[in-house]
Amino acid sequence: MASSQVLLVTGTHGNEINGPWLFEQWSQNRELINNFGLSLVRQIGNPKALDIGRRYLDFDLNRSFRKDSQDCLTSSNYEVNRAKELCDLYGPNGSNPCSIAIDLHSTTADMGSCLVIYGRRPVDLAFSSLIQTRLGLPIYLHEGDPSQKGFLVESWSCGLVIEIGPVPQGVLEVSIVEKSRIVISASLEVLSMVRDGTAVYPDQVVVHKHLGSIDFPRDHQGKVTACIHPERQGADWELIEKGSPLFMDLNGEIERFDGKDKLAPVFINEAAYAEKQISMSLTNREVWRLEQSWKEELKELLS
Amino acid sequence: MASSQVLLVTGTHGNEINGPWLFEQWSQNRELINNFGLSLVRQIGNPKALDIGRRYLDFDLNRSFRKDSQDCLTSSNYEVNRAKELCDLYGPNGSNPCSIAIDLHSTTADMGSCLVIYGRRPVDLAFSSLIQTRLGLPIYLHEGDPSQKGFLVESWSCGLVIEIGPVPQGVLEVSIVEKSRIVISASLEVLSMVRDGTAVYPDQVVVHKHLGSIDFPRDHQGKVTACIHPERQGADWELIEKGSPLFMDLNGEIERFDGKDKLAPVFINEAAYAEKQISMSLTNREVWRLEQSWKEELKELLS
Repeated sequence: MASSQVLLVTGTHGNEINGPWLFEQWSQNRELINNFGLSLVRQIGNPKALDIGRRYLDFDLNRSFRKDSQDCLTSSNYEVNRAKELCDLYGPNGSNPCSIAIDLHSTTADMGSCLVIYGRRPVDLAFSSLIQTRLGLPIYLHEGDPSQKGFLVESWSCGLVIEIGPVPQGVLEVSIVEKSRIVISASLEVLSMVRDGTAVYPDQVVVHKHLGSIDFPRDHQGKVTACIHPERQGADWELIEKGSPLFMDLNGEIERFDGKDKLAPVFINEAAYAEKQISMSLTNREVWRLEQSWKEELKELLS
Repeated sequence: MASSQVLLVTGTHGNEINGPWLFEQWSQNRELINNFGLSLVRQIGNPKALDIGRRYLDFDLNRSFRKDSQDCLTSSNYEVNRAKELCDLYGPNGSNPCSIAIDLHSTTADMGSCLVIYGRRPVDLAFSSLIQTRLGLPIYLHEGDPSQKGFLVESWSCGLVIEIGPVPQGVLEVSIVEKSRIVISASLEVLSMVRDGTAVYPDQVVVHKHLGSIDFPRDHQGKVTACIHPERQGADWELIEKGSPLFMDLNGEIERFDGKDKLAPVFINEAAYAEKQISMSLTNREVWRLEQSWKEELKELLS
């Protein structure tokens, strides 16, 4: 049974305080979220960063789950050590192993409630398709981006990120906490149904496949020279096409999208991504048929 | 003429990035905001904090303009030194003196565009009444709070804060920049009209007089145990009365306001105020008759 444990993490970024509030509520009231008989482990990802209300101390914890950085045993980087600690405790080969990880975040972007999966792992696709069917949430499939690696859930056999927005960093809002509760609750329920053999899968899953990220326009010194165009602000998931305004520079000049496809930008103007030189990411909305083997793999993981 | 210079400051908090963007736009396009023949000095309040996207390095710059801290010449506190530098340069007795200071901020609270004045200086009341007449903005009169001292504009003979919200920390939004531009522009226009003797004052000014601030409910260890009630979130300036919900605790229990007057909360759930133990401030909406002497004092300052 130990192998079917679910690891629930939040506060992976210390200035995202709504998830930790939900966990605190849940500690005080076990009935707040039904665990459907699943064995759960709850963890605050980055407790030190949460204490001081910053995203991280030394490095983004949610980019610290890289085998190469964890092999460096003498690291003085708090987040790299914390990543290693979480893997040693709850990783597939850890002392208290979990097979599935759910990492709950918030964003300043107007993403609503959504799911993020990394790569095309069959179990993640199966799991997220069930939540999508239940709640209608969009799925952002992040893949093929060598500049963005080391996400927490990648260190587990199956896992996804829940993103809820928009909310400013460091601000607690009941509506965001409640949306978080709903998605966590649905996630656990569908996992229990997979375990029980009662899950009803959709025929297809809609994914927003990551194509790449766009930096803000910059001058030759690297200084940002334009901001998100008002038509794009808050318009996550809305399709753009050639000619759609993306940025507005200091003189009010508009920079337009010069691609051709209908693409859906996500994480538009997320406060924490400016340092990563990301103004938004572009995705392609695709409908994939759900493979039988994906469902079987997820069932196997939970048995 | 030097004495009628106006000091315009923004970026006093390094994670409020919309004002600095406006100043940058203005540098590139001098016609963006009419200076109406006024002599202006523009300054980024806290350039080091702006560079790293934090509110401050050592201490809140907008609480560092205290005579007692500035008298300590050997301070290693960056903000205290920066406050002293700004006073030495542009203070009433500085090398390049300004008589009026305008400090442009943003807030995560849903305050809209508003003005903040400190104490009941006749010149501030006269100045803000003219902007209120022009744009209809609410005025928050901060006074009598010994725990909150050392605001920048208090070091000038006349001055006020412009607050624009809501916007997350570290997020640039065209709509916030544009609202900032409108209020700065109106402020300069009314000052020019005072100088020219063409200002038309209202008979009265509506102020929201600070009565005190409310901390979040806490347990005996000082840990926050309740968050802003959904009815209060985003409801800045809306009157509350006895029984209005203020907070919701971890178990969903509601804490209600037990005062009697109709009061208007402001800065509800401002991200930066949690560390100051302020969940919101309570104000009393009052209508004051504009005194002739206030107008004369402001005219005198600009002549």
